[in-house]
Amino acid sequence: MRIQTLCIVGVGLIGGSIGLAVKSRGLADRVIGVGRRPEALDRALGVGAIDAAFPGITEAVHEADLAIFCTPVTAIVEQVLAAAPACRPGTLLTDAGSAKAVIVRTLESRLPKDLNFVGAHPLAGSERSGPEHASANLFQNKVAVVTRTAKTDSCSLERISALWSALGARVHVMNPEEHDSALAMTSHLPHVVSAALVGVLPPDLADFTATGFRDTTRIASGDPALWTGIFLQNRQALLAAVSCLGNRLREFRTALDAGDGAAIKSLLEQARKVRDALGNRD
Amino acid sequence: MRIQTLCIVGVGLIGGSIGLAVKSRGLADRVIGVGRRPEALDRALGVGAIDAAFPGITEAVHEADLAIFCTPVTAIVEQVLAAAPACRPGTLLTDAGSAKAVIVRTLESRLPKDLNFVGAHPLAGSERSGPEHASANLFQNKVAVVTRTAKTDSCSLERISALWSALGARVHVMNPEEHDSALAMTSHLPHVVSAALVGVLPPDLADFTATGFRDTTRIASGDPALWTGIFLQNRQALLAAVSCLGNRLREFRTALDAGDGAAIKSLLEQARKVRDALGNRD
Repeated sequence: MRIQTLCIVGVGLIGGSIGLAVKSRGLADRVIGVGRRPEALDRALGVGAIDAAFPGITEAVHEADLAIFCTPVTAIVEQVLAAAPACRPGTLLTDAGSAKAVIVRTLESRLPKDLNFVGAHPLAGSERSGPEHASANLFQNKVAVVTRTAKTDSCSLERISALWSALGARVHVMNPEEHDSALAMTSHLPHVVSAALVGVLPPDLADFTATGFRDTTRIASGDPALWTGIFLQNRQALLAAVSCLGNRLREFRTALDAGDGAAIKSLLEQARKVRDALGNRD
Repeated sequence: MRIQTLCIVGVGLIGGSIGLAVKSRGLADRVIGVGRRPEALDRALGVGAIDAAFPGITEAVHEADLAIFCTPVTAIVEQVLAAAPACRPGTLLTDAGSAKAVIVRTLESRLPKDLNFVGAHPLAGSERSGPEHASANLFQNKVAVVTRTAKTDSCSLERISALWSALGARVHVMNPEEHDSALAMTSHLPHVVSAALVGVLPPDLADFTATGFRDTTRIASGDPALWTGIFLQNRQALLAAVSCLGNRLREFRTALDAGDGAAIKSLLEQARKVRDALGNRD
């Protein structure tokens, strides 16, 4: 994996961490950043996540042999299509969005033939945002999903997989719909549940929350606009996941209603077994 | 608050931490422990949580002017009633159970007149258990609920409140039913939700969980038997709390189903506002 000029569109926590990780590993000759907000670009320059800042996407992607879009999922399709005419033939385009099917399927059908797009999603992040929280090791030992469809160029797929491996991630290749179903259960559903739980807390009970409540609801501090975009792009899979959780909650209610200790204990034992197997590694 | 002999029944994480906290603050002349499992008593002696270990409750409470029951909620009523005949008149009895109404109402109606019971519940703990995880500062800046009913002796209430204040806790006095409704929302519901979430995770998706999933489900590692007991003692309030969460999940489903971004964002914004106000203090 050798990059001449890497262009990072969106230098927040993920974009900034990609810049730091690429630079610390010497994977690119030059890393340039593009962003809507000048202060974020300045901070990204300040922490050394990028070598140069560009105000506009088209000027920046024209310099790049690889461009990675780390903007909100709802912005990616439009930005990639707007950038495409400015790209040199053969420029490889990718992203880091948390939902994949809409982005990958739309771009594969609409991009010019001389540009390849491969979707990606590193399963890393935090309720914090901004390049000031970026880390060169954010992706170390994390999973990065790289998407493959019938239209995906195999050489491009290999390059994007190699990039994420080089950043320390464990790469899973799957199709965009498989990704979206999986993440609906492992990421988007927990966000809904966390927000629902803290959302129904009566204000006068705040003082009666302890570490358990706080851990269970920590992710509800995430950016509402970002998560709304993710939910909308993955709403069918998320609806299925919410239904699935609703069924399990109904089992708890039935057992509670009947005072059925054996049924409650069995539900809790199954949950503990699954949870203990996950461990607490980051 | 001056104790001659404090008897701790059940020297796990909570009982052990009470012993360490009382001893480190010099609040009692002597701390004795009782437990079902000799190895837990040995560990409690080893970490210095108790000065002496007793195999039987009756022998131990006979020595005490204050006895605190830190056993599972389902065991407390029976143990207190069994211990009562061995207590000297005026011995003050209390507990640290996570559900209060069943325990307090039953004991207030069944204990001999010369013994006072005051319910208590420190909102501290962890998914870890055992005296080896005990800490003298476990209760520092945490809330401790102390219960008051029409039958509660006011002098005993003051002594138990003073004990928890001396251990560093912020004391809230309320009736047992208020406690149980509050904790249904802030502790028992999060446990149900956490267990439901990890319980519906398809095994092949374990590798696609990241820190968000792990935080949201951490408490599902708690002891299933302990939590079953808590749920059964508080099942009416917990059923109401589960219903309340179910209604909020339905609002999410309706908004997702309609692709209503404004409604989704509004739900997430309200949740973030409440969550941010809670902070991350322990």
